[in-house]
Amino acid sequence: MADSPMVPQSPCGLPWYVAGSQVLGLACVIITGVWMGHYRGGYAWDGSSREFNVHPLCMVLGLVFLYGDAILVYRVFRNESKRSIKILHAVFHVIALIISVVGFVAVFDFHAKGKIQDMYSLHSWCGMLTFVLFCVQWLLGFTFFLFPGASQWLRKSYLSLHVFFGLVLLALAVGTCLLGITEKVLFSIESTYSSFVPEGVLANALGLLLVGFGVLVAYIVTREEFRRPPHPEEEALSMHFKTLTEGGSPSSP
Amino acid sequence: MADSPMVPQSPCGLPWYVAGSQVLGLACVIITGVWMGHYRGGYAWDGSSREFNVHPLCMVLGLVFLYGDAILVYRVFRNESKRSIKILHAVFHVIALIISVVGFVAVFDFHAKGKIQDMYSLHSWCGMLTFVLFCVQWLLGFTFFLFPGASQWLRKSYLSLHVFFGLVLLALAVGTCLLGITEKVLFSIESTYSSFVPEGVLANALGLLLVGFGVLVAYIVTREEFRRPPHPEEEALSMHFKTLTEGGSPSSP
Repeated sequence: MADSPMVPQSPCGLPWYVAGSQVLGLACVIITGVWMGHYRGGYAWDGSSREFNVHPLCMVLGLVFLYGDAILVYRVFRNESKRSIKILHAVFHVIALIISVVGFVAVFDFHAKGKIQDMYSLHSWCGMLTFVLFCVQWLLGFTFFLFPGASQWLRKSYLSLHVFFGLVLLALAVGTCLLGITEKVLFSIESTYSSFVPEGVLANALGLLLVGFGVLVAYIVTREEFRRPPHPEEEALSMHFKTLTEGGSPSSP
Repeated sequence: MADSPMVPQSPCGLPWYVAGSQVLGLACVIITGVWMGHYRGGYAWDGSSREFNVHPLCMVLGLVFLYGDAILVYRVFRNESKRSIKILHAVFHVIALIISVVGFVAVFDFHAKGKIQDMYSLHSWCGMLTFVLFCVQWLLGFTFFLFPGASQWLRKSYLSLHVFFGLVLLALAVGTCLLGITEKVLFSIESTYSSFVPEGVLANALGLLLVGFGVLVAYIVTREEFRRPPHPEEEALSMHFKTLTEGGSPSSP
């Protein structure tokens, strides 16, 4: 199939970068699962700290790994129709949103049952900001790119903002996870953290892997040579809008 | 002067975005200064916690505010020669580097005198990573763009990586500051942080302002319409290299 003239090959290096991002992303999810499962007592839904443990796992899985993969669909599925990829992008984001809502419910429920104050920390402020902006970004993306009412001019005007804030939100999500890791180790193992105990080193390594995943996804998405080639009809549309707009750039994200 | 045909005006909105970034950046520096000066006992160089207080101020001033401004010189000084702006960019980074070295010395000296373990936290790992990559980025930037030996082809090949990793490092620096804020409030005011005491709210607000500064600098730098217009001789050079390279983009950062 790869040699067929009908199916253009991926740009040199792209499959390796995508594979690398998946290894890093899965490592983040697995290490979070092991941290909470092995070192912090496992999972439950009973208001105990084991319910809290659902929170980090859902956030890393939803708002980082699946969110990053939702961004990557435009680079991975290069030969599908643009509408199919848009729908896949939106569906990935909805799954990420649902999983992160479960994560939010877990921590608020744990706080309510343990009579712990909500929303006082920088981690919680950044997390709520990320979540709200994520919902706004999804709604705007749906309205502009999937809802039939938006004009091509509006879509083109909004596209670069959508891409920029998509990457800002990924960075915010990763940053918020790092804040959560720091809070968790200081609440749980503050007295032994400075002795390089395995749990502390694992938590730090998770932080660096999350940074690595975010940087790799951002790198793949921003490389000009990795952009999805427009299909013939999209190219015609792009050329048309280049004549209408000054200094226009290609309209595929 | 602004109406002279010899001095092209800035693109619509750019001065406002740059002014906004300066307000946010200065607010970050001032709030850090007030936090350490008013709430944490002020500054000294005696191995006490007042020496530690030099660390956050230097890091926010050097690795965030001046680092961000070093990036912005390409958008602010639009009509100077490219070589002058390159030198200004490198000099700003050297000042940022010197200030951040003072910040590093402050915290290592405080740890040494207080017999506190170094480099065990995620904050310290991210901070050291940022600092080392910043030095590598500076050296590579100097070698490729200021040292006369590098060919135009090498410069052009490296430029997009330099810009990408420059923004990654700004994000890492901001993220590391947020981790430092979280560590500091949990070490200093853990028992009252959840009661929304003024110091905790100020620290959280500082975190959000740092995020705002980073996002605004990244926005200004990545907008196509805010790019520095190439001077006639640079344009000729750019056109020349466009014929040599496939799908070449303009060579000004």
